[in-house]
Amino acid sequence: MDDATKQALETLFGANSKLYETRGFSRRIGYGTRPALVNIDLANAWTRPDHAFSCEGMDTIIPSVQHLLDGARAKGVPVVYTTTAYDNVDGPYPDSGLWQLKIPSEQLVTGTEAVAIDDRIAPVAGETVIVKKRASAFHGTLLAGFLRAARVDTVLLTGVTMSACVRNSAEDAIAEGFRPIVVREAVGDRIAGAVEWNLFDIDAKFGDVEPLEDVLAYLDRLPTPNTGPAQGNRAVG
Amino acid sequence: MDDATKQALETLFGANSKLYETRGFSRRIGYGTRPALVNIDLANAWTRPDHAFSCEGMDTIIPSVQHLLDGARAKGVPVVYTTTAYDNVDGPYPDSGLWQLKIPSEQLVTGTEAVAIDDRIAPVAGETVIVKKRASAFHGTLLAGFLRAARVDTVLLTGVTMSACVRNSAEDAIAEGFRPIVVREAVGDRIAGAVEWNLFDIDAKFGDVEPLEDVLAYLDRLPTPNTGPAQGNRAVG
Amino acid sequence: MDDATKQALETLFGANSKLYETRGFSRRIGYGTRPALVNIDLANAWTRPDHAFSCEGMDTIIPSVQHLLDGARAKGVPVVYTTTAYDNVDGPYPDSGLWQLKIPSEQLVTGTEAVAIDDRIAPVAGETVIVKKRASAFHGTLLAGFLRAARVDTVLLTGVTMSACVRNSAEDAIAEGFRPIVVREAVGDRIAGAVEWNLFDIDAKFGDVEPLEDVLAYLDRLPTPNTGPAQGNRAVG
Amino acid sequence: MDDATKQALETLFGANSKLYETRGFSRRIGYGTRPALVNIDLANAWTRPDHAFSCEGMDTIIPSVQHLLDGARAKGVPVVYTTTAYDNVDGPYPDSGLWQLKIPSEQLVTGTEAVAIDDRIAPVAGETVIVKKRASAFHGTLLAGFLRAARVDTVLLTGVTMSACVRNSAEDAIAEGFRPIVVREAVGDRIAGAVEWNLFDIDAKFGDVEPLEDVLAYLDRLPTPNTGPAQGNRAVG
Repeated sequence: MDDATKQALETLFGANSKLYETRGFSRRIGYGTRPALVNIDLANAWTRPDHAFSCEGMDTIIPSVQHLLDGARAKGVPVVYTTTAYDNVDGPYPDSGLWQLKIPSEQLVTGTEAVAIDDRIAPVAGETVIVKKRASAFHGTLLAGFLRAARVDTVLLTGVTMSACVRNSAEDAIAEGFRPIVVREAVGDRIAGAVEWNLFDIDAKFGDVEPLEDVLAYLDRLPTPNTGPAQGNRAVG
Repeated sequence: MDDATKQALETLFGANSKLYETRGFSRRIGYGTRPALVNIDLANAWTRPDHAFSCEGMDTIIPSVQHLLDGARAKGVPVVYTTTAYDNVDGPYPDSGLWQLKIPSEQLVTGTEAVAIDDRIAPVAGETVIVKKRASAFHGTLLAGFLRAARVDTVLLTGVTMSACVRNSAEDAIAEGFRPIVVREAVGDRIAGAVEWNLFDIDAKFGDVEPLEDVLAYLDRLPTPNTGPAQGNRAVG
Repeated sequence: MDDATKQALETLFGANSKLYETRGFSRRIGYGTRPALVNIDLANAWTRPDHAFSCEGMDTIIPSVQHLLDGARAKGVPVVYTTTAYDNVDGPYPDSGLWQLKIPSEQLVTGTEAVAIDDRIAPVAGETVIVKKRASAFHGTLLAGFLRAARVDTVLLTGVTMSACVRNSAEDAIAEGFRPIVVREAVGDRIAGAVEWNLFDIDAKFGDVEPLEDVLAYLDRLPTPNTGPAQGNRAVG
Repeated sequence: MDDATKQALETLFGANSKLYETRGFSRRIGYGTRPALVNIDLANAWTRPDHAFSCEGMDTIIPSVQHLLDGARAKGVPVVYTTTAYDNVDGPYPDSGLWQLKIPSEQLVTGTEAVAIDDRIAPVAGETVIVKKRASAFHGTLLAGFLRAARVDTVLLTGVTMSACVRNSAEDAIAEGFRPIVVREAVGDRIAGAVEWNLFDIDAKFGDVEPLEDVLAYLDRLPTPNTGPAQGNRAVG
């Protein structure tokens, strides 16, 4: 982030953080006991250069997600990835619905390298990859039902972009009954300011923005394995 | 249920139960560890005579729900009620949407005695009453998010009708990640057969149909209180 | 359907249809002006023999759907297919969520011939195939948003099974604001009775059950093309 | 807005608008043919001073909404209001779910003056007031199904706050298949900057931000009445 951007953000956020706290916003939601790691749109169209969707900051984001994957897998925490891809990008009935009227969704074609998860943070067997069609990881997907079936109560969010898919996923997460924790070093955007103002809004109202170190320490504190089989062909009660 | 109905149902279900089991359907989903009791549309329009929506079997259903309420409240299990009521029953934009084109929804007016929960099973302070607009207790309501926030994993379903609201709620419950347990003595309909064929379908595919005695014993086995505060202004992890 | 089943159903439905009509149920929702054809789970695991999910009646269902496809395509009506398939059928976090605890979902593996749409009614370019994870074609999918983006007001439902996916899709369709029309000859199940009792419930409360001939005549009456581009990179107003 | 804020925003948005356009974002979604006016959280707790939720800018917002109401009512366009209110603000199972852990939701009590729609823009008979529990006007409400039943294709959004409820509603609107049009003079927040950065994000990716004058002219161009009865006890096709 350049100095001008930094200073502009300080100007904007300065007084407002106090206003929120005085009025009872910006409370801490805290960690629950059963997290899932949800990595949003860390596919090549976003993580690699020269795409319409390319984002900044992958030098920090990718290693941060690698550390989180290590921490989550060590404790048997469920890992979910999303990507955004479309089967019909032209014709009268595109599966992007109305979204093609705002963004270049026609460049996200099912089955192409662009929409595959970046292989530096590739999913392993048993992890869930959701192909979503909208911004939120929850909207029109199995995610909320899947997480509740696994008795998850907390979602650790990474990925891009802060101004669309990560933000909307955080909003939906708390609405659906999950504690959203956004990992500061593991999220990004095309625009430096947009990372910051969306983190500001989220931290005030929807979820906690926490440093990577704190989230890794939380994963480390979980029992091993954290989550026994959430289901099984018998009663658990 | 008269003898002719009974015999007709036996004819229909006889061979089919075996077919389901041979093929791997009709498995037991079992009880989870954190239930909620969800009482569907036990408002006067359904529980009392002389309404378009009046149902049969309240001599059994009401006492069964009373026992379940006692059992749930003794363990601090969350209790939810639904009713169905509309603010605008005429005009071009009724809040019943298209449902008025199939059923007499114009008789379910917000604020009338008809849509109030039957006072024999009235909610107490701290219990949740959801005014829904569609058949499912989940569709267009806070229910899924509310239950997840309370870390519920199992819904004990009572109420009416089996051919609409209870069935659709059971279908949505499992989709949303909750174990549906339908309490046999606590559910009803306008039509005796409809109770049975909907229980048959649910038990084969969506949830377990269990006798009241079994569900009461399950509640009795829970620790006291079963559910500590699901939330709180601090981290729980 | 054998005679015993037929007679049993007549016994069950006889008096009840009258009860519904007297009370104001079983109204006609009617056709809207912009339909979509939604074919549910007509994939090989359901349409071909020797699967756990195999259904009866394909000699009638498949040709009926072929006629509907012809009628819909001639008018540019959107065509949607669903199938049900899972990426992770074992391990602690299956994408079937809790549904594996009731049904043999482990047999529906992503990418296998079993979950491919039956090639007798194969989709053509520009048609939408939804891989769903739950019973309803709407739950956790893009369907409602997709249909509204295309300004659809009516869904013509075909497929299997009446006791699960078709029924639940009809329930959700009306809740989501679409007129459900279930095409009698184009729907089926594993169990003859289950087709009938679910059609009975739907026609009373959720949508109209109409004969193929009537639905084909409706499609034939539509203008050509029925639906101009629902979207486009400019304002339509 | 003070000069420092203004200049800070110019610094942040300057280069970025160009980046979006070069890459194919910030397209115009345009108006559809059947709008609804959706007024978000213009209840006293937000529109009047001295509440935790009080917002700035009501001198502009209230008259703007009055003009929009006139324009919409003249053409029979459906009008929807939301408010946010809770039945249980303490106890272990609040209907705010997890949101009480971030914001002072305990101050929004069902039935109080604080959560009643501001009487300067009061609803009239036949208009829909939705009591929501989460940020989005769509999440856990009848809204999407209601609008589809009325064959609406466009939502004209007003109200507060841009950093939570209006933004999240715009995101959900396009996902659900409706064209979001945010009326610039009719939206607000507690924080001047938050209005601007959220409008910036929305205009880039989710909906069009349009001046009041333009939206009023659009309403004026609609036929009278714009929307015939969306339903009726008969087929329309």
